[in-house]
Amino acid sequence: VLALSQVPASIIDGLRKQGFNVVQVVWKRFPDGEFYLRIPKDEISASEIFIVTTMYPEQSERFVELYLALDALRGIGVKAKSIAILYLAYARQDKRFLPGEPISIAALLRPLTLYAVNELVVVDIHAYETIASEVKELNIRNILPHSYLAKSVGIKVDFVLAPDKGALHRAKSVAEEYNVGYDYLEKFRDRISGEIRISEKELDVRGKHVVVVDDIVSTGGTLAKAIEALYKAGASKVYAIVTHALLVGNAIKKLEDVGIDMLITANTIIHSEVPSWLRVVDISPLVAEALRRS
Amino acid sequence: VLALSQVPASIIDGLRKQGFNVVQVVWKRFPDGEFYLRIPKDEISASEIFIVTTMYPEQSERFVELYLALDALRGIGVKAKSIAILYLAYARQDKRFLPGEPISIAALLRPLTLYAVNELVVVDIHAYETIASEVKELNIRNILPHSYLAKSVGIKVDFVLAPDKGALHRAKSVAEEYNVGYDYLEKFRDRISGEIRISEKELDVRGKHVVVVDDIVSTGGTLAKAIEALYKAGASKVYAIVTHALLVGNAIKKLEDVGIDMLITANTIIHSEVPSWLRVVDISPLVAEALRRS
Repeated sequence: VLALSQVPASIIDGLRKQGFNVVQVVWKRFPDGEFYLRIPKDEISASEIFIVTTMYPEQSERFVELYLALDALRGIGVKAKSIAILYLAYARQDKRFLPGEPISIAALLRPLTLYAVNELVVVDIHAYETIASEVKELNIRNILPHSYLAKSVGIKVDFVLAPDKGALHRAKSVAEEYNVGYDYLEKFRDRISGEIRISEKELDVRGKHVVVVDDIVSTGGTLAKAIEALYKAGASKVYAIVTHALLVGNAIKKLEDVGIDMLITANTIIHSEVPSWLRVVDISPLVAEALRRS
Repeated sequence: VLALSQVPASIIDGLRKQGFNVVQVVWKRFPDGEFYLRIPKDEISASEIFIVTTMYPEQSERFVELYLALDALRGIGVKAKSIAILYLAYARQDKRFLPGEPISIAALLRPLTLYAVNELVVVDIHAYETIASEVKELNIRNILPHSYLAKSVGIKVDFVLAPDKGALHRAKSVAEEYNVGYDYLEKFRDRISGEIRISEKELDVRGKHVVVVDDIVSTGGTLAKAIEALYKAGASKVYAIVTHALLVGNAIKKLEDVGIDMLITANTIIHSEVPSWLRVVDISPLVAEALRRS
């Protein structure tokens, strides 16, 4: 396994415990901002390897890093059999919402086909169908980690809520695991201002331990509104299970202000700040299993 | 002409004066750092267009922007006939200096072939041969602007110096224009520390107006050492003509400390700071001519 620059140390350790030989790229940034990498050739003896990377922080640079790594591997005659992208950035622009827009995730994954890569392991991807239809050469394995995250921490769950209809399949998977009910909130996003509004909805959560399930928490706006709605409806505890916790801007404060009890997340990115209510769960066993199957 | 996000306003104005219809992309950054663009479809009626972009600042994001623009054009059924990249970043990693390194510029231009782009206009590219041999589908037009820059400002030139052997063809082109002598300095760069050393060399420049010619000034280290050597050898005035003036870090101070008289540069990037000795020359007539020929 070749690990690119921003892969969390806990993933590297985890993969090693799973029996993989993990080699890390050598990298730096030049004073003008350009990214540089080198593959420690002498540490790689196989002719086919796996790449593990994550597309945060510096999402654009991360895609550039992946293209550079693929070119470097070509230079030493090694093929990337499969690429695990722990957090796949740019996946929310998964269709042309307005004319003249790109399908960003297709534009950024398409270059992989230049290197005959045809297996991708991703964690809770936002836009499964897009990649399948736009970049047909790529076979995708999507890890849905919510049940694993819930069980790793061992929380009590009475009800599962998706903050919008798009996250319903995630809520369903957790609800079935715990044999409890689930529902979703109607979310409206103004595509110009980006502002989020959540419709009033009757939620039967009085006195219950509710878990909100989603794929990404970025600025925390959607999650904070969902938590607020749940406490208003009488929930006794509100947990969140969100695969990728970017927590940009004042997201941490926003979630504390609405009284979040616990946020369970996967170690798909490096967390620079870990407040007491943030539980980061190592998902390297899931990644290892997906790589072995690919 | 579709102008991407970081093209200087002076280039856009210049191309318009040259008779081109220039349309600018709509762009923003999401709070988590992802780049977004949209092509104003209604302003484009042609089925084939030119793209103009520059790869600074945020070099990695600029390549991502170009891929997104190409995917967006595909979405509206418009072909990019030719792409003018005013400043082509990542061009200094133009070979595998060490085993396990990528040829970065090849890795980043190769995705253009996915969109059937086969004409590239560049300004004073560092690595002409690499692109020609590594990305064969691309036909390159390289603008060498030094004589144009010198004549635009109207300086007196007695002698031309290249700060290293690689820049000799640039010095030659200016020297021939002015019918004066030229030479180069021996530069040694430690590939690990990045430190630059210039060998002592006899230079017959006493009392002369000398112009140092190069492609890129980044941190200013090489240029400052050349200027120092020239004053030490008795030059009366030292000008520099450098196509791309990135001037990162404390480059401006470094050049002032060695007493630079004038730095003439092209408007291939946006200059946030323009000290009195920096003359930015509009090269849009050269870009327009190259686009018309492609």
